[in-house]
Amino acid sequence: MKQGTLDLETSNSALERFVESHGFRHAITGLIILNAIILGVLTYSQQLPSPFVSTLQVLDITITLIFAVEILLKLTVYRFRFFSEGWNWFDFIVVTISLVPATQAFSVLRALRVLRVLRLLHVVPTLKRITEALLKSLPGMGAILAVLALLTYVGAVMATNMFGDTDNPEVIQLFGDLPSSAYSLFQVMTMDGWRFEVVQKVVDDGNPYAPFFFLIFIFIASFAVLNLFIALIVDALAASERAATDEHLDEIEEELEEEFTAADLERDEIITLLKEVKAELADLKAARSKS
Amino acid sequence: MKQGTLDLETSNSALERFVESHGFRHAITGLIILNAIILGVLTYSQQLPSPFVSTLQVLDITITLIFAVEILLKLTVYRFRFFSEGWNWFDFIVVTISLVPATQAFSVLRALRVLRVLRLLHVVPTLKRITEALLKSLPGMGAILAVLALLTYVGAVMATNMFGDTDNPEVIQLFGDLPSSAYSLFQVMTMDGWRFEVVQKVVDDGNPYAPFFFLIFIFIASFAVLNLFIALIVDALAASERAATDEHLDEIEEELEEEFTAADLERDEIITLLKEVKAELADLKAARSKS
Amino acid sequence: MKQGTLDLETSNSALERFVESHGFRHAITGLIILNAIILGVLTYSQQLPSPFVSTLQVLDITITLIFAVEILLKLTVYRFRFFSEGWNWFDFIVVTISLVPATQAFSVLRALRVLRVLRLLHVVPTLKRITEALLKSLPGMGAILAVLALLTYVGAVMATNMFGDTDNPEVIQLFGDLPSSAYSLFQVMTMDGWRFEVVQKVVDDGNPYAPFFFLIFIFIASFAVLNLFIALIVDALAASERAATDEHLDEIEEELEEEFTAADLERDEIITLLKEVKAELADLKAARSKS
Amino acid sequence: MKQGTLDLETSNSALERFVESHGFRHAITGLIILNAIILGVLTYSQQLPSPFVSTLQVLDITITLIFAVEILLKLTVYRFRFFSEGWNWFDFIVVTISLVPATQAFSVLRALRVLRVLRLLHVVPTLKRITEALLKSLPGMGAILAVLALLTYVGAVMATNMFGDTDNPEVIQLFGDLPSSAYSLFQVMTMDGWRFEVVQKVVDDGNPYAPFFFLIFIFIASFAVLNLFIALIVDALAASERAATDEHLDEIEEELEEEFTAADLERDEIITLLKEVKAELADLKAARSKS
Repeated sequence: MKQGTLDLETSNSALERFVESHGFRHAITGLIILNAIILGVLTYSQQLPSPFVSTLQVLDITITLIFAVEILLKLTVYRFRFFSEGWNWFDFIVVTISLVPATQAFSVLRALRVLRVLRLLHVVPTLKRITEALLKSLPGMGAILAVLALLTYVGAVMATNMFGDTDNPEVIQLFGDLPSSAYSLFQVMTMDGWRFEVVQKVVDDGNPYAPFFFLIFIFIASFAVLNLFIALIVDALAASERAATDEHLDEIEEELEEEFTAADLERDEIITLLKEVKAELADLKAARSKS
Repeated sequence: MKQGTLDLETSNSALERFVESHGFRHAITGLIILNAIILGVLTYSQQLPSPFVSTLQVLDITITLIFAVEILLKLTVYRFRFFSEGWNWFDFIVVTISLVPATQAFSVLRALRVLRVLRLLHVVPTLKRITEALLKSLPGMGAILAVLALLTYVGAVMATNMFGDTDNPEVIQLFGDLPSSAYSLFQVMTMDGWRFEVVQKVVDDGNPYAPFFFLIFIFIASFAVLNLFIALIVDALAASERAATDEHLDEIEEELEEEFTAADLERDEIITLLKEVKAELADLKAARSKS
Repeated sequence: MKQGTLDLETSNSALERFVESHGFRHAITGLIILNAIILGVLTYSQQLPSPFVSTLQVLDITITLIFAVEILLKLTVYRFRFFSEGWNWFDFIVVTISLVPATQAFSVLRALRVLRVLRLLHVVPTLKRITEALLKSLPGMGAILAVLALLTYVGAVMATNMFGDTDNPEVIQLFGDLPSSAYSLFQVMTMDGWRFEVVQKVVDDGNPYAPFFFLIFIFIASFAVLNLFIALIVDALAASERAATDEHLDEIEEELEEEFTAADLERDEIITLLKEVKAELADLKAARSKS
Repeated sequence: MKQGTLDLETSNSALERFVESHGFRHAITGLIILNAIILGVLTYSQQLPSPFVSTLQVLDITITLIFAVEILLKLTVYRFRFFSEGWNWFDFIVVTISLVPATQAFSVLRALRVLRVLRLLHVVPTLKRITEALLKSLPGMGAILAVLALLTYVGAVMATNMFGDTDNPEVIQLFGDLPSSAYSLFQVMTMDGWRFEVVQKVVDDGNPYAPFFFLIFIFIASFAVLNLFIALIVDALAASERAATDEHLDEIEEELEEEFTAADLERDEIITLLKEVKAELADLKAARSKS
């Protein structure tokens, strides 16, 4: 029994070395890129000869199965630790989606299969660094995004109440219900066709003062987005700058510390010498008074 | 009488503790969120069964009354101090608007009721921090916004004079009077459909040189907006950066101060010792010359 | 004669005090604002009663004449120095334009009269500070704007050669000659309706590869604009930051200097004392060996 | 033979001086500007009198030949070193393109001839500095651009699969194949007409949930672009700031070093003096005990 456990452990650590090896990672990277190309070519499936398409589909399924085996291997090696890393969850979900048969009801799943290609974002180290930097800047945006969402919600309720109760199908499309209003306000926020595609239609529907509502919304939303942007810049700079200047300052501090310690030691030596001189003199004086 | 005053003060400070308690704030937060949901659902009032709508409306009125009582409580506790904080003004106005009966003449007031939900912006501490940061960056924008407003006003007067005197209804909509011109220039500033929705219509109306006017306006306005933006970034960074580096520098300064004080004390000791040695020697010399 | 010169000088310096007095500046500021309002109201001249319009026009002319007198006063006081400041040139030109009678041939001059209102930008100190900050950031943009202009010129020549030789009036309007092409490329640069208002029309005219040209242009131009923007931020920050940190560092440097000087003086005292002690000892020794 | 080599070397270094002289560079700059004007005027060739056009074409060819000679001279002088600088490659390619006869098959080459004018970007020193600064900021964008490209590819495959299989020609134009989808997603990313030119057409084609796909894409892409932008600002600032503060810190460090060295020397002098005093005293004591 003990022997068996040992064997398992040995094979497990061998498996771990294999799973974490450069070669394995490079092979997986290659397969993801190949898969990306196959999925791209398969978008032309209707123009391509049928046997070629079938071959590509078989290749695609094969690669998906290899990814599934990869995840099983990692699950075997890391067990519960596997799920402690977010990227592993991403891989697990994305590969599982690819394995679900895409019936009519789940046709959207077929589209989601392409997400497999995004595995590149953490398998290639350079891209992983960027992606993680992007993800790290997310929390700093949280509170302002919440403010923006709240403003959009309040604006959407107001717009639906004020403009949605109409017979004009164009205005109903824009502000007929809460999600439509939020969507239209988002369009206004992106400044895309805000005047003639949105505001003017509302004005023509009998709301002459609608521009005030939208102008106030544009000002407040732009101002919030601007500050969101500035907050991100300040955070990024604070991290980069502070580090650089602080490092230099720490260096100078250390040097100063050394200099001061050296000076201190010398002064201690001076004091010791002086005390010796003083003792010597006291000695001399004593000897003299004795004599 | 004195007893009565004391009672009032006691009950007042008990009320103050209640009004400022976490529980009270959490309850109010919950009510605002519930109110936000109710107001959102009420935008579907025409599709929902009538009794359900009535229930929601009663709930909405109840919550508004609770908010009114909350403000009355705060007025009782803080009295005139209540109005020394801007957020209290906001609450007061927003709740008062909600209590005004919305007749035909005041139908816009009904839309404004939703503003109650924005109370979240200062009741939830995280959002309050963000909102106050946003408000604090406003004064820094003041002067540039004034410049932009002046440029838009001058541009609007010029555009109305140059393009507004026409029979073309599309151009009259764009530049027929001063507010329309200012609004159209704002559209041009947002770069939304500026060429074919605005400039081309003016050109087609017999103003072949109109693009020069608009290009100059776009350049000047973009330049001012750009600088507005940069001013905000610089202010935000100056506040954040300076604080960080300055803190480090202050720390270093303090350490240096300590080191110098220590060195100074040691040098003082050395000088004292030396003076003693010198006095000793003078003593010795005097004794010698005496002997 | 001398008396006369003195009188002139005396009256001149009295005039200078008057021209530079706060009251005079405030009066001019008030007149500019009043003039701005009058010019705004005059855009409604066709809807307003004729006598009211006439009154306003007389007021407008009166204010213009006051501005002319103001400039004459300043010319009397400062003489040639008047033209050494840019703002005075601005006032001089803007007021001169207002005095030229606006015949049919010069109808554009009437529109330019409104520019008088922009005098506020340097008469009001707060606005003057902002405007001068804006103008100061212009030279930093010069070189990148030159690069952008060169790219647009080269792009416009290429676009005119490739797309302009056609019978399609829509494409001729876009790329029929060099200025049109530059204008259309500027539109593409602002990202406004670039795809369906510009690129698609060129594609439909028989240039299937046009999107490559425009995408490359968008990438290069966006990249240059982005860097223009970054250069401005970096310049603004460099000025603000460096000043702040450097000030602190200068302060620390000064303090260090003081501390080092104090320490130096004390060390000098120590050395003097020691030399005295040594001399004393030498004395003692000499006395001893003599005895 | 040796004489011949020497002659060649002498003439070569004379040639180098000529090629690198200010006069030569100024002449080339002038020719490029003249060429730019000629190429601009030639876009009006159909409206201009035929002999004038012919003259300009001859001038254009002459200038091209002068540029060819210039490159040949540089090749003679620098030989293989010529190709070690990127700008020389640029000149070489751009002039070679101009020399290829533009037959029907190569009509695009005629448009590319205008690229010659871009030689100004490295011949004029001010522009060269800017252009090289722009090029230097490119590598910092590499990784984020790769992430953006990957996101666009994955999005394009998904969009083609989900929306491309339709009979609606407008949607086929937008998402019919992979390049069209990538192009349309780029349009969505630029926020230009994203709602009614792209998303709405897809929704009307029977994809009611399409807005979710596009909103998610807009959020992720904007977020990536925003971070690309921030990364560039941080890099630019890090380079500029750090340099400035670090220089000041280095200066302070150096001064401190000097001060500490001076103090150290003085302390060494003190110690030496003290040791002498001690030795003197020991002497005295010895003499005394001897006596």
